[in-house]
Amino acid sequence: MKSRYDRIKQEAYEANMQIPQKNLAIYTFGNVSAYDPELAVFAIKPSGVPYERLTVDSMVVVDLENTIVEGTLNPSSDTKTHSVLYKEFKGLGGITHTHSPYAVAWAQAGRSIPVYGTTHADHLTEAVPCTAVMSDELIRENYETSTGYQIVQCFQDSKLSYAEVEMVLVACHGPFTWGKTAEKSLYNSAVLEELAKMALFTEQVSSQAKPLKAALIDKHYQRKHGKDAYYGQ
Amino acid sequence: MKSRYDRIKQEAYEANMQIPQKNLAIYTFGNVSAYDPELAVFAIKPSGVPYERLTVDSMVVVDLENTIVEGTLNPSSDTKTHSVLYKEFKGLGGITHTHSPYAVAWAQAGRSIPVYGTTHADHLTEAVPCTAVMSDELIRENYETSTGYQIVQCFQDSKLSYAEVEMVLVACHGPFTWGKTAEKSLYNSAVLEELAKMALFTEQVSSQAKPLKAALIDKHYQRKHGKDAYYGQ
Amino acid sequence: MKSRYDRIKQEAYEANMQIPQKNLAIYTFGNVSAYDPELAVFAIKPSGVPYERLTVDSMVVVDLENTIVEGTLNPSSDTKTHSVLYKEFKGLGGITHTHSPYAVAWAQAGRSIPVYGTTHADHLTEAVPCTAVMSDELIRENYETSTGYQIVQCFQDSKLSYAEVEMVLVACHGPFTWGKTAEKSLYNSAVLEELAKMALFTEQVSSQAKPLKAALIDKHYQRKHGKDAYYGQ
Amino acid sequence: MKSRYDRIKQEAYEANMQIPQKNLAIYTFGNVSAYDPELAVFAIKPSGVPYERLTVDSMVVVDLENTIVEGTLNPSSDTKTHSVLYKEFKGLGGITHTHSPYAVAWAQAGRSIPVYGTTHADHLTEAVPCTAVMSDELIRENYETSTGYQIVQCFQDSKLSYAEVEMVLVACHGPFTWGKTAEKSLYNSAVLEELAKMALFTEQVSSQAKPLKAALIDKHYQRKHGKDAYYGQ
Repeated sequence: MKSRYDRIKQEAYEANMQIPQKNLAIYTFGNVSAYDPELAVFAIKPSGVPYERLTVDSMVVVDLENTIVEGTLNPSSDTKTHSVLYKEFKGLGGITHTHSPYAVAWAQAGRSIPVYGTTHADHLTEAVPCTAVMSDELIRENYETSTGYQIVQCFQDSKLSYAEVEMVLVACHGPFTWGKTAEKSLYNSAVLEELAKMALFTEQVSSQAKPLKAALIDKHYQRKHGKDAYYGQ
Repeated sequence: MKSRYDRIKQEAYEANMQIPQKNLAIYTFGNVSAYDPELAVFAIKPSGVPYERLTVDSMVVVDLENTIVEGTLNPSSDTKTHSVLYKEFKGLGGITHTHSPYAVAWAQAGRSIPVYGTTHADHLTEAVPCTAVMSDELIRENYETSTGYQIVQCFQDSKLSYAEVEMVLVACHGPFTWGKTAEKSLYNSAVLEELAKMALFTEQVSSQAKPLKAALIDKHYQRKHGKDAYYGQ
Repeated sequence: MKSRYDRIKQEAYEANMQIPQKNLAIYTFGNVSAYDPELAVFAIKPSGVPYERLTVDSMVVVDLENTIVEGTLNPSSDTKTHSVLYKEFKGLGGITHTHSPYAVAWAQAGRSIPVYGTTHADHLTEAVPCTAVMSDELIRENYETSTGYQIVQCFQDSKLSYAEVEMVLVACHGPFTWGKTAEKSLYNSAVLEELAKMALFTEQVSSQAKPLKAALIDKHYQRKHGKDAYYGQ
Repeated sequence: MKSRYDRIKQEAYEANMQIPQKNLAIYTFGNVSAYDPELAVFAIKPSGVPYERLTVDSMVVVDLENTIVEGTLNPSSDTKTHSVLYKEFKGLGGITHTHSPYAVAWAQAGRSIPVYGTTHADHLTEAVPCTAVMSDELIRENYETSTGYQIVQCFQDSKLSYAEVEMVLVACHGPFTWGKTAEKSLYNSAVLEELAKMALFTEQVSSQAKPLKAALIDKHYQRKHGKDAYYGQ
């Protein structure tokens, strides 16, 4: 029997299955959700279930108040962070959270990832931002919801556009990424891990490494994302 | 013909086979045991046999005095360390020992692994402890048994609970992990290797990296292991 | 129906498929072309198409003025860099560009890769050169064509032979490699990534590491490439 | 038709095929030989042939004066190094040479690998030695033969036993390992790469890391290799 949530459940399932395939997390350390803007609900990985036991029907459908509207399992413990981002960052179709080791290292070190090269500039023109550390009060009160607002605050403070910068490091924790679809958010997690790895290696090759100059950042970003973009089909 | 040790032999076999699958050791450099608390015996990998030649029936069943009660092969040379831990740390169902390279690096450097982020705090609230180096006298006398007591001493000196901190680094050697089941002990070895890798990368990203603050450690540990835990099913 | 471009399309296809197989780039971050010197055209990967969806017939055939002569898709956004190299470096049969992480790290750090050992000297007698950073004017005008001339300039300034040194790092960007065939250019990309990795590890093992002395460089290069070469069949 | 070299050709073939399987070299950057002490000949990989095209019959059989006694292909360019070692180190059954990246890094840095832990002491009680750099004269005259004597000299100068220390780093080049059989020599190459990796990581975790103390080295080596060894079956 068809459910009207079938599309987002299928999308969420497929993107979650890419987490282990792309080595973005071991065991259950990552989750993807897919959003339906018309129904204002999203399908997300059930909490603590290993990827090899996931099925399309095990995806949990939740509304923006975090109420389960379909599914028999508990949703990911990070569900409230996802719902804040869908509410505040209009137009997202998917969100991915992983514990990929290089991105986690930058998050644990509390550093934004500088734009060291064109691989980075092909995707975003800014350093990958790292949030502030949350206050003890917020941690104790409503931690996962506050994590979402921590991200929103970070983008406001840094005057970043979430439509251009589709990734963030939550300090001491790890990466969240998003995009127009669940698959695109997963893609952004894989790209972020590659950028985090390349940036660390770059600093190891030279402690004098400098961020990319503005003209190169602009060129690479615009040829892929600008109005006269000529990358892709 | 059924043996009353079939359950622990099966468990030990399956967990041992995960050592190469999860890249936790090359060749024969790791072993898992599964404990039966009613019979006070455990099944453990035979010594020096490559994983691809293991079978359920090749598992060696040993009692807490290290006497073989079933099996035709020599048990792992680390057997006496396992038996000390089963005797001293009541309630364990399985123990894993590997030579996974990042965990070994911290053990060889003689450093505990600081709690740098939430991946760590999801599993334990303390640094992964590293034992003291054994005295020459103990090394010469009864090395493997002393290794077990070295671990017990480390937990007593640091006032750590083995029920909460299910992993340790034996200085100059490598990791031992445990849990309610053999599979859980293997899981803890894979998690420890990931934590050891992330912690090294974190220090490479910033020599100023600081351990996680108490409120975040507590939050992540409690949401997964506390009485009001809401992680998992 | 046979096209007279079938050979180069087949060669380009096969070499492009090795990019993910040899872990030289994730997603679409790399491209190979194969050149036909008689027809003065080359076959190149279509822009933005994932490797798993490539077919021989999806390869785009382009002449040295970057005009498409066969194919329905847009060619790689790096096409103009390839055509400059085919024009200026006579005798090339193939060119590969990847974003392999260790080579990218040296490019982002703006450092040439020193000849630290015989693995390097088996392939080239010089440091792998790193170009200068392009001027803002050139970046804005005709970026991909200028990238090609940046490489040519680098070889002229350093008095390097492109027939002997079949690889370069474009500063802030990543590696380009070439050879008598597309497959050889791909081989050189894999070798370069290995050299870049070994060179970084060497400096991490010892900050005092010194480049190989001339006699060893000469010996290893000549036994494989000299007139009395005795390596291979 | 059976040849009296079938056993060593089969052994050499199987051990060579493990080089790519265990990620010890890319392309053709490694070779294994298997020795027959009665016939005083060894079977070795043909030069420059990729592993996926090797067959048992492509192995080249060579005597200790480097004369081909069976086979239609050129033997490995490192053949003369193998023959010196078989002549000087009596009792070897196999030799492996690879360009595995961590071992190469120590060789390129010109450093012996300290005994940092029990993984090392399980296999040898000494640092993995690194030879001196060869004089220009020897390099130009008979390079591969001189490489063999460089290794022999290194063991004499350091008063090391080749029967106990079955591995060496040739400065600026990479590892050679040996053993009672070709398979054991290959095993030693895989172990050496793991020790090289662990030793680098150990120094990265702590610049104060100290070599293992004598009692632990002795204990681990003796329990596996001593007259009262109790490791294995």
